Amino acid sequence: MLELFIANKNYSSWSLRPWVLMRELEIPFVEHLIPFSDNIKSNAFRNFSPSGKVPCLLDGDTVVWDSLAIAEYLAEQTPQVWPSDRPARAWARSAAAEMHSGFQALRSLCTMNCGARVRIDSYSSELKKDLDRLDELWLQSLDRFGGPYLAGQSFTATDAFFAPVAFRVQTYELAMAPEALAYSERLLALPSMQEWHNAALQESWRHEVYEEITRNAGTWLNDYREAGAGPR
Amino acid sequence: MLELFIANKNYSSWSLRPWVLMRELEIPFVEHLIPFSDNIKSNAFRNFSPSGKVPCLLDGDTVVWDSLAIAEYLAEQTPQVWPSDRPARAWARSAAAEMHSGFQALRSLCTMNCGARVRIDSYSSELKKDLDRLDELWLQSLDRFGGPYLAGQSFTATDAFFAPVAFRVQTYELAMAPEALAYSERLLALPSMQEWHNAALQESWRHEVYEEITRNAGTWLNDYREAGAGPR
Repeated sequence: MLELFIANKNYSSWSLRPWVLMRELEIPFVEHLIPFSDNIKSNAFRNFSPSGKVPCLLDGDTVVWDSLAIAEYLAEQTPQVWPSDRPARAWARSAAAEMHSGFQALRSLCTMNCGARVRIDSYSSELKKDLDRLDELWLQSLDRFGGPYLAGQSFTATDAFFAPVAFRVQTYELAMAPEALAYSERLLALPSMQEWHNAALQESWRHEVYEEITRNAGTWLNDYREAGAGPR
Repeated sequence: MLELFIANKNYSSWSLRPWVLMRELEIPFVEHLIPFSDNIKSNAFRNFSPSGKVPCLLDGDTVVWDSLAIAEYLAEQTPQVWPSDRPARAWARSAAAEMHSGFQALRSLCTMNCGARVRIDSYSSELKKDLDRLDELWLQSLDRFGGPYLAGQSFTATDAFFAPVAFRVQTYELAMAPEALAYSERLLALPSMQEWHNAALQESWRHEVYEEITRNAGTWLNDYREAGAGPR
């Protein structure tokens, strides 16, 4: 049985990628959730992950310690991870890899914080640029492959790589094109995304590093977590 | 015929990855070198690359606009891109993907600048941490798979992803473990790497954004480029 090591569902955007992919493709796995330690930078994850980062997949003795590497590892036995058509697959891999190394402003300014709701009062040019690129990427692909998912009829790894963005769109009420917001809503409505979101809201761990980023993003509106952190 | 769009050989570390991979695996391609525009941030690359970034591979109508996606695209028809053994392949993909999204301090503080030689006078803790992780990753893999390349006897995409690090080690005289330095030297000695390096030294373009990062890294020692930029 595959074992997937992840961190807090409320915060860990990288953990969400393989988790939602495996759920949507009905690949069985055992989940191990190891919460971030208090100072975040601790190396507790080193006990199972060579890089000290999550997510990390264990398949017997084989360790796969990166979200994109996990997708490719799974794709070898589950071809549905990527589109079956070669040009669509090239597109899907390019988009997932662009997310993997890029969108730094979105990732750093709008850290994933599933339960919080914050309104961004003014967008930096870097964040605006990232959102413009997301609009363009999503709209082009939905148009080219016909939707409802980015690469067409089926959920693929590319959707999994943008799934954390959907939670960010929800938390920060990000200004995007109507078709992009509709795609984001479709992701949020998936049973797997609902399951993740509900589990995130139950978590009582609060990490000030992430909470501070969230608060600094704009005006605090709401907190749907059980023991809401709220602004201080 | 495959067409690979790249930027300046002296600076563009991301371009080097697929270029050296295709050279080492003897995959034929036509090279298109489009130098960075003066303000670097210009969108000239948007004429061929959807993300406005290099490298970008064209295969007829198919556009593959990320270095890791290019590796996977090539791997579909050239299995030698990754190790043939599945656990080794999982390792190789994890390591390449870790480089793809990580090592931020190394990438931002020690920008690739093939022709320059700079001595780092004091290492920041972030840079030290990146180099420690590189030491660990390389030494573990050389030990596990037996070398001389990271995943064993053959050059794979993982080596291609760390090839820009070898130029950084050379430029900044990075302090690393002896076995790691030896691996870096092996990469630098490859005919493909020599070809890239020699072409980089011929380039007359100078980009202040990168030159400033290089100068700020420590004490300027030398410049092997034709029309040396040197410290100002």
